Amino acid sequence: MMVIMKPGHSTEEFEAVMARIKEVGLDGHPIVGVERTVIGVVGLDREHPELADDIEVMAGVESTVPISSPFKLCSREFKSEDTIVDVNGVKVGEGTITVIAGPCAVESEEQVMSAARAMRARGASMLRGGAFKPRTSPYSFRGLEEDGLRLLAQAREETGLPIVTEVMSEATVDIVAKYADVLQIGTRNAQNFFLLEEVARTHKPILLKRGMSSSIQEWLLAAEYILAKGNRSVIMCERGIRTFETAARNTMDINAIPLIKEMSHLPVVADPSHGTGKRKLVEPVALGMVAAGADGLILEVHPSPEHALSDGAQSLDFDMFSSVMANVAKVAGAVGKVMERSTVAV
Amino acid sequence: MMVIMKPGHSTEEFEAVMARIKEVGLDGHPIVGVERTVIGVVGLDREHPELADDIEVMAGVESTVPISSPFKLCSREFKSEDTIVDVNGVKVGEGTITVIAGPCAVESEEQVMSAARAMRARGASMLRGGAFKPRTSPYSFRGLEEDGLRLLAQAREETGLPIVTEVMSEATVDIVAKYADVLQIGTRNAQNFFLLEEVARTHKPILLKRGMSSSIQEWLLAAEYILAKGNRSVIMCERGIRTFETAARNTMDINAIPLIKEMSHLPVVADPSHGTGKRKLVEPVALGMVAAGADGLILEVHPSPEHALSDGAQSLDFDMFSSVMANVAKVAGAVGKVMERSTVAV
Amino acid sequence: MMVIMKPGHSTEEFEAVMARIKEVGLDGHPIVGVERTVIGVVGLDREHPELADDIEVMAGVESTVPISSPFKLCSREFKSEDTIVDVNGVKVGEGTITVIAGPCAVESEEQVMSAARAMRARGASMLRGGAFKPRTSPYSFRGLEEDGLRLLAQAREETGLPIVTEVMSEATVDIVAKYADVLQIGTRNAQNFFLLEEVARTHKPILLKRGMSSSIQEWLLAAEYILAKGNRSVIMCERGIRTFETAARNTMDINAIPLIKEMSHLPVVADPSHGTGKRKLVEPVALGMVAAGADGLILEVHPSPEHALSDGAQSLDFDMFSSVMANVAKVAGAVGKVMERSTVAV
Amino acid sequence: MMVIMKPGHSTEEFEAVMARIKEVGLDGHPIVGVERTVIGVVGLDREHPELADDIEVMAGVESTVPISSPFKLCSREFKSEDTIVDVNGVKVGEGTITVIAGPCAVESEEQVMSAARAMRARGASMLRGGAFKPRTSPYSFRGLEEDGLRLLAQAREETGLPIVTEVMSEATVDIVAKYADVLQIGTRNAQNFFLLEEVARTHKPILLKRGMSSSIQEWLLAAEYILAKGNRSVIMCERGIRTFETAARNTMDINAIPLIKEMSHLPVVADPSHGTGKRKLVEPVALGMVAAGADGLILEVHPSPEHALSDGAQSLDFDMFSSVMANVAKVAGAVGKVMERSTVAV
Repeated sequence: MMVIMKPGHSTEEFEAVMARIKEVGLDGHPIVGVERTVIGVVGLDREHPELADDIEVMAGVESTVPISSPFKLCSREFKSEDTIVDVNGVKVGEGTITVIAGPCAVESEEQVMSAARAMRARGASMLRGGAFKPRTSPYSFRGLEEDGLRLLAQAREETGLPIVTEVMSEATVDIVAKYADVLQIGTRNAQNFFLLEEVARTHKPILLKRGMSSSIQEWLLAAEYILAKGNRSVIMCERGIRTFETAARNTMDINAIPLIKEMSHLPVVADPSHGTGKRKLVEPVALGMVAAGADGLILEVHPSPEHALSDGAQSLDFDMFSSVMANVAKVAGAVGKVMERSTVAV
Repeated sequence: MMVIMKPGHSTEEFEAVMARIKEVGLDGHPIVGVERTVIGVVGLDREHPELADDIEVMAGVESTVPISSPFKLCSREFKSEDTIVDVNGVKVGEGTITVIAGPCAVESEEQVMSAARAMRARGASMLRGGAFKPRTSPYSFRGLEEDGLRLLAQAREETGLPIVTEVMSEATVDIVAKYADVLQIGTRNAQNFFLLEEVARTHKPILLKRGMSSSIQEWLLAAEYILAKGNRSVIMCERGIRTFETAARNTMDINAIPLIKEMSHLPVVADPSHGTGKRKLVEPVALGMVAAGADGLILEVHPSPEHALSDGAQSLDFDMFSSVMANVAKVAGAVGKVMERSTVAV
Repeated sequence: MMVIMKPGHSTEEFEAVMARIKEVGLDGHPIVGVERTVIGVVGLDREHPELADDIEVMAGVESTVPISSPFKLCSREFKSEDTIVDVNGVKVGEGTITVIAGPCAVESEEQVMSAARAMRARGASMLRGGAFKPRTSPYSFRGLEEDGLRLLAQAREETGLPIVTEVMSEATVDIVAKYADVLQIGTRNAQNFFLLEEVARTHKPILLKRGMSSSIQEWLLAAEYILAKGNRSVIMCERGIRTFETAARNTMDINAIPLIKEMSHLPVVADPSHGTGKRKLVEPVALGMVAAGADGLILEVHPSPEHALSDGAQSLDFDMFSSVMANVAKVAGAVGKVMERSTVAV
Repeated sequence: MMVIMKPGHSTEEFEAVMARIKEVGLDGHPIVGVERTVIGVVGLDREHPELADDIEVMAGVESTVPISSPFKLCSREFKSEDTIVDVNGVKVGEGTITVIAGPCAVESEEQVMSAARAMRARGASMLRGGAFKPRTSPYSFRGLEEDGLRLLAQAREETGLPIVTEVMSEATVDIVAKYADVLQIGTRNAQNFFLLEEVARTHKPILLKRGMSSSIQEWLLAAEYILAKGNRSVIMCERGIRTFETAARNTMDINAIPLIKEMSHLPVVADPSHGTGKRKLVEPVALGMVAAGADGLILEVHPSPEHALSDGAQSLDFDMFSSVMANVAKVAGAVGKVMERSTVAV
């Protein structure tokens, strides 16, 4: 941390800041510039996260500037080699493209089984489907709950595809973990810190969606919550952020892919279904995210999108999904990757 | 809802949309324009929240436009007179300015008691203080938990000030409700729908902070979750939104005050501490929000901001708080309001 | 400027950075921390605006952090006392509230004269009106051009109100300056640097609207362009920024008022007509901006808003304007100010 | 346009709206719903752009909703086949990937000639370089002006590469058009409507950068200004938008590529240098934008980025540019495209 003093601060104000730094066991190194004096704080300020705020209110202080990264376990500096997350033999982040696909919400046995078979036949590596659904309106369909989880498990049994499903509340972590292979944290819970620690505790792999207004640093700090509880199997998922543009449902942040790769060792997948909200945009954006370095995709596919109980407007039908898979494979090849193929025998 | 057809759609595509509307028991009324055909959907589309998405994927359809408001119970149309929330005799929304003040986090008996006495002496109507703290970093101070709640209760006993404190997880709703007079939902849980329903169930008044990236409509839908469970005592709290501007911690949305007043009957207070993140901005912004029609303020005040365990940079000290109270009273008078004075005898 | 080196940089990389700093005549002061080495650059880096970018691409460098403010002439450090802008005897920034009011666009003699008389009668200090209109669509009404300017001059002659009008292009700076008392730079030209220098050259007072996506620092740098050409009469105008919220046309940034007051000596007024885009929001937001410390308001008022050729939805009618003036006066009094009264005899 | 009436409006209010619609020669078709009455306005409301605003202030009206697209000439509906822009034989938008590359600013003969030769040798189709530079700070390097244009022309003579350079002001349109093959409109002038019409008049191809806070609709309306003046050679350029995320300089909007392709017939290229602001992100994002369907790229390349007079932090060196070209060619192949090769003989 650097402390920037105001022009014209008094000696007493300067000494008080130096003393406050010493109080927590750190050292202050002043640099006297032409217009301003700056104090470099030497020591691990990550261990004193309140210090910057406290110093900012002191007399004579203009502002503070962080220097050290606020996260540690998920940083490239801490671990330079890529983390590969193993989900029942499906490897995420191993230089392959992993495709997780399926309906937004589990609606019926017929729907989920037909989707699971179609996903398997078209080359998906995992099946997604929501049993508990976060809905902006209290009047929307909110999922089949445990019945939905059972249907997902049944689909896994038949197809061998591992199951990815969202957990929305601490109270249902255990029940979801009983059925799911990967626990998904949704965008609205990206800073629900109690839930992050609860899912960490299951030691299942976590698919961590970016909060729709989370900075990349905040998203990595959310991952840090999980890693700090001893669960190292985190898959980051870019799903679009909220901006002024309304022509698509969200703004897919393609920059986030290489940024996460540079800052962290964790694998990162992209969700063009939510990142665009429009089925016609899903394929081009999926191709773009793979070309930019994503380790995989998560896609909403529905047997009959015009009768979906949620997110129909962004769901692909089976034919569109086939097209996406064929073209993703070509782009993957162009960037030196292959499509992940599950090693699970069915 | 209006369905906008693409130019050049076929008769079959048009008929299919009309049939899909009929399928759920609604009626379609087409208007043939010069460039486009539009179908007005007559009936309560709020009861068919998936219909718009489903129709958007149909062939020949360009887009759909909602007409009816997606929320009901919190709307002015449903209830035209202002809701007044009664907290142990403190009335919020009665044409008065209610000030809720206190430290960000409860840190010690000495800190909370000195703050409570100072708030009481300077005219605050309620005491705020965090026992469970949401922190972006897992390495920050996270609150005294139940010990903190006990200290808040002790402060209430001495000063008579009702207690406002945040609840962060379903697992702690009961313990927080045991001590608190108002349960606060923080910005990071503004769309944690399970938690919204859990706090509703306590039938305590709820202070509902706006999500930092929630639209006003989404914020009202979050209130709708609480009202739909039978709890009508919701206080909306504008606390700033996330934008491109970084000179302040958030962008305080002053427009939200008259917008909530127009769209809803619920009272709305402002949080200039989080809305600015800088103590020097707190007073002018507090005055502005009151002049714009806010029913009250929630303010962070700390006996010694430069030693605060959280949010020191935005906390007022006691002298600054005195100044805010004096000037808020003047501005309140200018807009025809008076400061709320608790009726609780101490 | 501080240069933050990567962990594990080599000695050669460090020396190269030190040499690059020396190359432009500045000094580097290294601080070796626990995780990172930081180099403080001592000297006026404002005079080497490319240096930060250049150093950022050097091997071993993680990032650079600016310390000095990038603007000088408009800063409080450069000039501590408030600038008062004198417009034909109307003083802006003298502890008074200056109200500039009138129609969005000049449409006809009858419209502008009736508006001017009404503004004068109701206490406005200056008349606004657009002769050249920036329009998002090429198919919208774009102003009466010089005829409009002549009508504004005629209105000034009768009412004594100084004229504020927008200049949109270098080619029309002279013609606009011939008639106007204050040249307005609109939000879409907030970073049109050629135009900023052209208007500076006229030595007329400039009303500088904030760009809809300008940071406060960028907005002050735009003012710096004008001041650097020797024109010190700049009135800053907050008119709302673009965010994800669509319930109002823009998000009025109330924090900007005290921030400008702290960072700069220039006066700042608020434009709640554009800041909200909805006439019903104009009065409460106007009151809020005045309470937060604005030196004045600029308001759209139209004799018949439902027949306005532009921005009817945000224009007040005369009765609404009377109400705003009465209530602004009360709030001004509450914050220790009075309404500006033009000293011009008519 | 649809007019949405308030619940409980009076018959007089309804009739007044119907009359106002009739007044401009359009027809109103009411639909009486369960909660609200909606009036469909039949006729070309694009020709009455003020009508919506005017109706919104009428009594009994809640809001209006546009139905027709506000632009015409640049829409797919108006022209279904792709526009191919021909720049001295270089075709943009013909199913090829056109790469425009060169330094941010022209700094010296040596710099521009070495860059031009290197770009030519590595397969670029056009040379970019700034002679007039928009700079946020008045203290930054602002270009060599006409000397810079002459150097660009000299580089064209030797290499045969057409020249793309920015025009910042009406006063310099003629001088820039005298030398340049493509006139670039920068992000800060994206809504400088006078300038848009001036450059249209030259009948040179225009590279139209998206405003950093322009919606896609506003960006297309800016193109409409140029097309409406009879210049049909517009190349759209996505260069990132301003959002809350600060880890990169802008947020590259990958969704914009397929959206422009769907809504318009104009070609669209991507600028990953400005879209990211960090040289390490340029290659992955360039690949992503090509995979998503961009017709080309514009890239900043500098012989010695650590001594660049502007935008060094985002400039590639020659080796990095070679890598980008090789990998872009592979991704182009994967999506069925080839690299554009200039037909100009040198």
